Amino acid sequence: MKQQILDAIHAVHASVPLVHSITNFVVMQVSANALLAAHASPLMAHAAEEMDDLTNIDSALVLNIGTLDPAWLDSMELAGKLMKQKGKPVVLDPVGAGASGLRTRAALRLLDMVRPDILRGNASEIMALAAEIRSADKISTKGVDSLNSSDEALDSARALARRFRCVVSVSGEKDVVTDGENVLVVEGGSPLMPLVTGMGCSASAVTGAYAAACENRLVAAAAAMAVMASAGEKAGRTAKGPGSFLPAFLDELYLLDPEDAAARVRILK
Amino acid sequence: MKQQILDAIHAVHASVPLVHSITNFVVMQVSANALLAAHASPLMAHAAEEMDDLTNIDSALVLNIGTLDPAWLDSMELAGKLMKQKGKPVVLDPVGAGASGLRTRAALRLLDMVRPDILRGNASEIMALAAEIRSADKISTKGVDSLNSSDEALDSARALARRFRCVVSVSGEKDVVTDGENVLVVEGGSPLMPLVTGMGCSASAVTGAYAAACENRLVAAAAAMAVMASAGEKAGRTAKGPGSFLPAFLDELYLLDPEDAAARVRILK
Amino acid sequence: MKQQILDAIHAVHASVPLVHSITNFVVMQVSANALLAAHASPLMAHAAEEMDDLTNIDSALVLNIGTLDPAWLDSMELAGKLMKQKGKPVVLDPVGAGASGLRTRAALRLLDMVRPDILRGNASEIMALAAEIRSADKISTKGVDSLNSSDEALDSARALARRFRCVVSVSGEKDVVTDGENVLVVEGGSPLMPLVTGMGCSASAVTGAYAAACENRLVAAAAAMAVMASAGEKAGRTAKGPGSFLPAFLDELYLLDPEDAAARVRILK
Repeated sequence: MKQQILDAIHAVHASVPLVHSITNFVVMQVSANALLAAHASPLMAHAAEEMDDLTNIDSALVLNIGTLDPAWLDSMELAGKLMKQKGKPVVLDPVGAGASGLRTRAALRLLDMVRPDILRGNASEIMALAAEIRSADKISTKGVDSLNSSDEALDSARALARRFRCVVSVSGEKDVVTDGENVLVVEGGSPLMPLVTGMGCSASAVTGAYAAACENRLVAAAAAMAVMASAGEKAGRTAKGPGSFLPAFLDELYLLDPEDAAARVRILK
Repeated sequence: MKQQILDAIHAVHASVPLVHSITNFVVMQVSANALLAAHASPLMAHAAEEMDDLTNIDSALVLNIGTLDPAWLDSMELAGKLMKQKGKPVVLDPVGAGASGLRTRAALRLLDMVRPDILRGNASEIMALAAEIRSADKISTKGVDSLNSSDEALDSARALARRFRCVVSVSGEKDVVTDGENVLVVEGGSPLMPLVTGMGCSASAVTGAYAAACENRLVAAAAAMAVMASAGEKAGRTAKGPGSFLPAFLDELYLLDPEDAAARVRILK
Repeated sequence: MKQQILDAIHAVHASVPLVHSITNFVVMQVSANALLAAHASPLMAHAAEEMDDLTNIDSALVLNIGTLDPAWLDSMELAGKLMKQKGKPVVLDPVGAGASGLRTRAALRLLDMVRPDILRGNASEIMALAAEIRSADKISTKGVDSLNSSDEALDSARALARRFRCVVSVSGEKDVVTDGENVLVVEGGSPLMPLVTGMGCSASAVTGAYAAACENRLVAAAAAMAVMASAGEKAGRTAKGPGSFLPAFLDELYLLDPEDAAARVRILK
């Protein structure tokens, strides 16, 4: 596994993939800076009129429903379908799924219509989507007796991965990545990361870069989280607070030690 | 007063309120980071379709007309009314009121239709809104014989507070906060603050967090400005310029000394 | 030339021009911060309803098609025409021209309908626009036998400057600025600049500030690039990576040494 992660990192650094994001307003700047620091190239565009042209040059597409708007959702679906037709990877970040019906439905619609290669969210988003699926399928949920949110998140991730035949990547204190069968765990990061807006969205953007450069989506998703975890942990050691964390994090992402990143990934089963 | 400010700070830190902003594109990232650093939780969303769901989970709502658009204005009015119906606080930042008729009218419409708990702006915005009200009411203005903009701003703030039965919080070299009767003054900050975009908008966002955690809106508004002033003054001591000021400010907001913040507030009359 | 650049810098610092940008979502914050650090004042607004009011107070207008949308394009055209009617300078940054037909057409339409004073882009954008013009005019292109992209960019810049009677400012390892006859070259900057999103867009915003304060558009455009190059080079000397580069760059822009900036500009012919 370690060698596969190293290969993915070298592939991104060598190819500098062009990652097209249709993402939320809050994180556009930090996501673009994270992609640049991670040796990829960002492109942000949402007009339906240019989706055919842009998907011709995109290496990967990242859809993020963070400040959702019905018009943007249409562009996301269009761009996603075009990328899949052109054989290129799509990542979906279902920001806020569970917080509103609009977001939950939008995420499920994009999963259904676009069939993203990788679904990347936090535990509560992944659990909300899995609960919605189980409810629609009239499968009884485990309810409140699940031992902890991490186990519940892994069960939810597995269920979604099988249902939508994608890789699911869940960020948390430990990140878990699964294709429905295999599970990889990534350790690292810093307690300051959740105190900086856009760290999760940047992880999704970087996941797009890795999906572009690495055919094995399970490895790609884990490598992206490993890169974030390595840079985050190093930045957290020197940062005084969340303000100094962000520039330090981007520096560490740029100066990445691939060995340190690769050592963070292990196979759960 | 000092104890009330301290209590408000502790209430925010203990409850981590969820502050929903419908705000301008320029300051979304910095406002979200300021909320996180101030021990609150940011949510940015503007689609009318999810306003009912989101106002169920919001602790406070902050409306900011900085990059105004008619469609967004409709969502602001809708979200504001829902929050008031649900008994939750609303803060309005009338960015650019006076610079265009659209903004002046939009701010007055939101004041009238939503009845925000706190109106938070800079002196020129507050004076422009008060002038518009006086003009509509055919009250003669004081014209150019007012002694200085600070006095004029306080008169304007008092007039708006009485008219719309809200607290008005005006940022400046000294901040003034009034409910129409009582006036609190907050001192501190740094000359670098006006050289960083979004400091005023972040003050409004943080005011939302304090309004969520503190029933007394006058105290809440003053506590938020005190927290900004304390962090700003400390950051200004070490920053080399406006670039290094921002990360230093977010660090100081996170590492806040509540005693230093509380000592900055005094009762004017 | 050096004295003209110094005069332009002093004119901006003395007048603090109000630069109105209709720009892309990714770079709004960094562009506003760059304007503030460069001793100008930012205003971001896109609603057609307030363009007449705002162009009355604007010192310059910067149009940037980075996250283009048909509705925004209409506002750009309206605002641009109003500014020209009011005798005020307009800068156009054709972000992504060549990457999609929508962007190429939008940039050419704005050039044609608004007649900006300064067109400011990177080499690939300028070459794409010139190629489109040559193709429409049935002028045979030089094709693949051009010696290098820098020569090609200068030829393209000259052609566009003559065609649209504007100054064209092209960023690259060396920046070139031309009015179709005279050519100025600006040297400096840092290899970290392309690794931070919004550096080019900030150069366009700062160009707006210089166009407001300096009648000679060739000098204004070169002075803006010189200021960026000086601050970028100094920031690059201390930055650890792209994360620490941005705050250092804004500090250096604020603490600018006008002599260092002015020394970077030379006349090519």
